[in-house]
Amino acid sequence: MRNNNPLIVEVTRGDMVESRHRGHCVVADRTGASVHAWGDGDLMVYPRSAIKPLQALALIETGAAEACQLSATELALAAASHSATPDHVDAVSRWLERMGLSEFDLECAGHDPKCRDADKALIRARTAPGALYNNCSGKHAGFLATALHMGEPTKGYSGPGHPVQQRMLAILSAMGGVDLAATPRGVDGCGIPVIGMPLTAMARALARMADGKDLDATRAGACSRIIAAMTAHPNMVAGPGRFDTVTMRLGGGAFVVKAGAEGVYAGIVPGLGLGVALKIADGAKRAAEVAMAAVLEHLGVLDPMPETPVLNAAQAKVGVIRMASDWPG
Amino acid sequence: MRNNNPLIVEVTRGDMVESRHRGHCVVADRTGASVHAWGDGDLMVYPRSAIKPLQALALIETGAAEACQLSATELALAAASHSATPDHVDAVSRWLERMGLSEFDLECAGHDPKCRDADKALIRARTAPGALYNNCSGKHAGFLATALHMGEPTKGYSGPGHPVQQRMLAILSAMGGVDLAATPRGVDGCGIPVIGMPLTAMARALARMADGKDLDATRAGACSRIIAAMTAHPNMVAGPGRFDTVTMRLGGGAFVVKAGAEGVYAGIVPGLGLGVALKIADGAKRAAEVAMAAVLEHLGVLDPMPETPVLNAAQAKVGVIRMASDWPG
Repeated sequence: MRNNNPLIVEVTRGDMVESRHRGHCVVADRTGASVHAWGDGDLMVYPRSAIKPLQALALIETGAAEACQLSATELALAAASHSATPDHVDAVSRWLERMGLSEFDLECAGHDPKCRDADKALIRARTAPGALYNNCSGKHAGFLATALHMGEPTKGYSGPGHPVQQRMLAILSAMGGVDLAATPRGVDGCGIPVIGMPLTAMARALARMADGKDLDATRAGACSRIIAAMTAHPNMVAGPGRFDTVTMRLGGGAFVVKAGAEGVYAGIVPGLGLGVALKIADGAKRAAEVAMAAVLEHLGVLDPMPETPVLNAAQAKVGVIRMASDWPG
Repeated sequence: MRNNNPLIVEVTRGDMVESRHRGHCVVADRTGASVHAWGDGDLMVYPRSAIKPLQALALIETGAAEACQLSATELALAAASHSATPDHVDAVSRWLERMGLSEFDLECAGHDPKCRDADKALIRARTAPGALYNNCSGKHAGFLATALHMGEPTKGYSGPGHPVQQRMLAILSAMGGVDLAATPRGVDGCGIPVIGMPLTAMARALARMADGKDLDATRAGACSRIIAAMTAHPNMVAGPGRFDTVTMRLGGGAFVVKAGAEGVYAGIVPGLGLGVALKIADGAKRAAEVAMAAVLEHLGVLDPMPETPVLNAAQAKVGVIRMASDWPG
């Protein structure tokens, strides 16, 4: 079903809708055919961290994962936007150490941990968060692993001309079935290039992870292995209480869901052979999560989630975040 | 000038616009005539904390400000969404003490301070933020001051039936020139009622603060005094580095600007006799600030502000937040 109307997420307070978010979403199969679409499927988006599952493929395809004897936990971290809990930080640290590298080889800068307890621990220790605490540190460890394994310089791996990033471009182009040579470029929060791609192409790339029939055996195997790692270790992909972790646990392996900044979301549904690409026009995370849950429910792979409350300072429920009444449009 | 198109705030990254926000805005005079309008002026909004300048009028009109010998600093705090710096917290604490009350009489719950240094200090002291740290604690101290002065119970002052909140409803109705008896209701972040009002009425209420010609002498005097307090003490109205504080300093008394949650903004421009009411449809603060600055620049009371950058974790500028190119529409 195709609908030119965007999907609408409402934020209510008491008697009325206080704020509204508009979203674009495409659910595609491996051929690129849209099974469902809302809003503008041709919208050019930066897929941001939502495509970390695709970015992690190079780790397996180059043989770096084998050479480095990466665990499923480490593969999940390579595709993660983690909360910087001690589990996350320690695992990335040990992985770097095993490669003879350290935090100082990571080209993502640090930022305050998404995990409030980790943030508090750093504040009490009067320590600034280093690059290990960046939610992308696992992805960057993966970049370093492939560069090392391929005999490429590790320094400069985050630049657009480095082979590491050229592999990312090649994977996105091939999986999305689209020429990305001349699409918009920018810099991500963690310093790597972002590559503009149409929402439909993003959905197709995710669908081909879900359904590898058209892929060569190496890539198909890499896709299955990343999906297996993420669904087996949802806590490594995000963190305690976060949407991706909570919903993947509920899904029990039926899907991968991965958030990106600025309201982007990716879904991979192997059982249906479908990919989901979603972008909230204004970039709001709160709306992207509610919309992604609604799409997964609509596809029949997630049971209805509890309503997302709006809480006040006293933690009283004063509203809800929900799909507008014309959903699924 | 009236324009049915909403105003659009763009968030760019590298070569393209990554996210877009839609805003509604009315600039009105004291008669309610729209001098400028973008989007839907009839939109029903909760004005949230943007109307704290209007809420503070009762403090003067009841005589509580005189009886309590309130300073201009305290009046500014009564109209503030403060950052909970030590200056803010200590001032509200001393004010309560002078009335024989304490933090435990405040009916707003605590929340983490907006000021990161204050947040860190509490974390290091392993202390949870009490109600004094709520950004609305000055407003609540004002509510308590009027209740005490009027001989009303202090307990329950945040409830919709209490005379304190009935005065708020009466002020909004009278200043907005609109019957608010049956408009939507909800509960604010700090526990008091929110009252739905059309954006045009909100703009008119603010315009009547800017231009008191139609008001009785008591109210006109109260309006002038609140405006004077806020423009003399912009640091008390918000806090270091925050938009309201920074722009009011730049304005040098030419305007009051006051943020509300969910992308609402109020402006009061005495020299032009105008009120500005603004609502970003999706509730985004980042867009509301850029749009409010643009409107103030358009009115000629604020010099062009530096571009608002989008920064990555390394603090590199990777984009900007700006008005769309068709502004001012």
